[in-house]
Amino acid sequence: MTSHPHGKAEHARSVAAHAAAVAELLQPLRSPERTETLPLIQALGRGLVDHVAAPISLPPFANSQMDGYAVRAGDLSGAGADLRIVPPVPAGSSPQPLAPGTAAPIMTGAMIPEGADAVVPIEKAVPDRFPEPGPDGAVNWNGTVKLNGTANWNGTVKLPATAPGTYVRAAGSDIAAGERALAAGTCLGPAQLGLLAALGIPEVTVSKAATVLLVTTGDEVVDPGQDLAPGKIYDSNGTLLEAAMQQAGLTVRRTAISTDNPAELLALLRAGSPRADLIVTTGGVSKGAYEVVRQAMAGQPVEFLQVAMQPGGPQGIGTFDGVPFLGFPGNPVSCLVSFEMFLRPALSACLGAPAPRLPLRARLDQPLASPAHKHQVRRGSLQPDGTVKLEGGEGSHLMHALAGSNVLVHVPAGVTDLAAGDEVEVWML
Amino acid sequence: MTSHPHGKAEHARSVAAHAAAVAELLQPLRSPERTETLPLIQALGRGLVDHVAAPISLPPFANSQMDGYAVRAGDLSGAGADLRIVPPVPAGSSPQPLAPGTAAPIMTGAMIPEGADAVVPIEKAVPDRFPEPGPDGAVNWNGTVKLNGTANWNGTVKLPATAPGTYVRAAGSDIAAGERALAAGTCLGPAQLGLLAALGIPEVTVSKAATVLLVTTGDEVVDPGQDLAPGKIYDSNGTLLEAAMQQAGLTVRRTAISTDNPAELLALLRAGSPRADLIVTTGGVSKGAYEVVRQAMAGQPVEFLQVAMQPGGPQGIGTFDGVPFLGFPGNPVSCLVSFEMFLRPALSACLGAPAPRLPLRARLDQPLASPAHKHQVRRGSLQPDGTVKLEGGEGSHLMHALAGSNVLVHVPAGVTDLAAGDEVEVWML
Repeated sequence: MTSHPHGKAEHARSVAAHAAAVAELLQPLRSPERTETLPLIQALGRGLVDHVAAPISLPPFANSQMDGYAVRAGDLSGAGADLRIVPPVPAGSSPQPLAPGTAAPIMTGAMIPEGADAVVPIEKAVPDRFPEPGPDGAVNWNGTVKLNGTANWNGTVKLPATAPGTYVRAAGSDIAAGERALAAGTCLGPAQLGLLAALGIPEVTVSKAATVLLVTTGDEVVDPGQDLAPGKIYDSNGTLLEAAMQQAGLTVRRTAISTDNPAELLALLRAGSPRADLIVTTGGVSKGAYEVVRQAMAGQPVEFLQVAMQPGGPQGIGTFDGVPFLGFPGNPVSCLVSFEMFLRPALSACLGAPAPRLPLRARLDQPLASPAHKHQVRRGSLQPDGTVKLEGGEGSHLMHALAGSNVLVHVPAGVTDLAAGDEVEVWML
Repeated sequence: MTSHPHGKAEHARSVAAHAAAVAELLQPLRSPERTETLPLIQALGRGLVDHVAAPISLPPFANSQMDGYAVRAGDLSGAGADLRIVPPVPAGSSPQPLAPGTAAPIMTGAMIPEGADAVVPIEKAVPDRFPEPGPDGAVNWNGTVKLNGTANWNGTVKLPATAPGTYVRAAGSDIAAGERALAAGTCLGPAQLGLLAALGIPEVTVSKAATVLLVTTGDEVVDPGQDLAPGKIYDSNGTLLEAAMQQAGLTVRRTAISTDNPAELLALLRAGSPRADLIVTTGGVSKGAYEVVRQAMAGQPVEFLQVAMQPGGPQGIGTFDGVPFLGFPGNPVSCLVSFEMFLRPALSACLGAPAPRLPLRARLDQPLASPAHKHQVRRGSLQPDGTVKLEGGEGSHLMHALAGSNVLVHVPAGVTDLAAGDEVEVWML
């Protein structure tokens, strides 16, 4: 596991150019064969393949925004009026037309009767509560109401002047039938799935989850739980990336840790790649002569290059036996930064999932310096007052600092010095 | 499905008081019996039960931050020196002590040899590349290196003056053995799991996922995919809440939609509650006489009340046959706001998962008005320039607007008018 973070910047590829190259590499994942139609809840976190137009209006019919009385506003001109109470309109019913001079108790969400054009909230009525059923009054809200003679059900109610349209939700006021409800490429979260459900759509066509073969490498790397010989370290890249990839909607297949013997790495890749949509390795991509990933990729159309980024400069990209391949550097923080800067956005662009990180602005709580020709990615914790506290230094090995962070802090190439209070772009992790 | 969003504010419970009541209700979920020990990756998204102290230091040993030469800085005082190259230190090896006057090629992450105290990056060396093996030179980075006579392996390298400590990562510079690595209650994301892996910890004790029984109610509500009779609407609450609860780490069990017949709701609750840690219903909690959830809860220690919040004012809270119960109002946006304001934070507090929403500040792109005695929760989309665009109005039925939002916008009780440009607290969804 080696890296070479300070490669000469003048030969480095820009972050934007490498991001575009990774997006291009993943294009094969975006194909009609790689879609599936799922019940809504199974589509949680997936990307929508096609635009969805509303098959019905929302709300489907004019309905009451309040518990109250449906009225003809014209009956209440001036100082209001006493109106005769007619049988109520429970939610879910298809009510009778409202006769002039009457008021129908109506529940929130219930259909406005034909003829009615406003709702008076119960609080503004005198009396300000609905008629109650009597001791023997059976009320069936699903249909007819058996009125009870002892209640004031057949009575009148005093209602104030009310403008037409008051507390009426017009049909289509949320979305009209035929309008675009969701755009292709939308990542389906609770609200988007809820909207599809409200529109009566029970299943949805989404991009299939991609399967990634994840291989960590390094003679020095051992699995957590094993004994740690001198010079060895525990593999954190595997857990870190598997978790991040899972959260991003990838199906992750891990191999055993590869030593720095290229034959061993090749065997792991050959065994796993036929069932993978993507291969990601960590480590072994630096400039040295004996980098295991470089060696294993000999003869494959894979490029190893420096990206003008700190950390995470050394990167590999290409295909292995025809499967898209990304070689991340070996340091844990470099791995996560590589994932967040290149792979995650490419997945969002190709598959519509995960949802892209929202770029936010925050003020630095301390000055920082950054190399002129590199895009520096620092880790930080965003504070409620809008400042960002840097966690750890530039070093890419600081896992404890990373674990205390909730944002990535971007210092673009060309920016070398920032003062406390300067604004930076941050991505929430 | 009815609601009553404009209940008299003077009798309403504050948002903070209801949030505290919900957190109290969920306290039984926080118990030693409700924990489990899982392999790291299965603990993704769970809450850590106990503080974790670092069993080893990170890094475990002083190592090189660069590919370069390990040196004794004292050998390079003044203008630097030509040092004799000795066999390299690959990552993962336990190197021989470094003799005075020599330089050992060292890879990033490899252990600093005893005696060495600095690393000169390869770029600053003359020549600026490592010795290459000759045509018959077999190099085994795992152990001994067979030097090749034709390469300059046995030669010298010219290195500049270098301060002690340069590019050396000291043992424990990330975290020292015994220090607190993660606090109890931490939600375990990729970085936190990566840290545990780096510390060699293969499994972790986390809170068990809670199981929620989710019941949507209403005579007017039908499942997506069914025909829609006049006066009926599709159930979006079920999908919306199931998805949100899944994302929050709950195991969700849905029943069929309950009509407004209390006997039917009771049967669904009785069938499902024995295996649930929590019951959530939607609808039927308002002030009317015939609210199905209120009726079904008769005889149970359940309180129905108004929270000084808009939307989502009517709430039910208590226990049903001993199982913690929350009754959300029936409108979809009210449901999501209820979940985000009360249930989700209580889960974070009790179980350490999901991770709490980070409160951010944003500037309104338009003025807004809010009732004096209510905490208004608007929906909005946060823009890259730090402004928030309100999506939809105050109405709680606007699913399309909700689906276009990425934040909740908070207007606390007591704030009645805000101008464009005013700062508000937002929660990213």
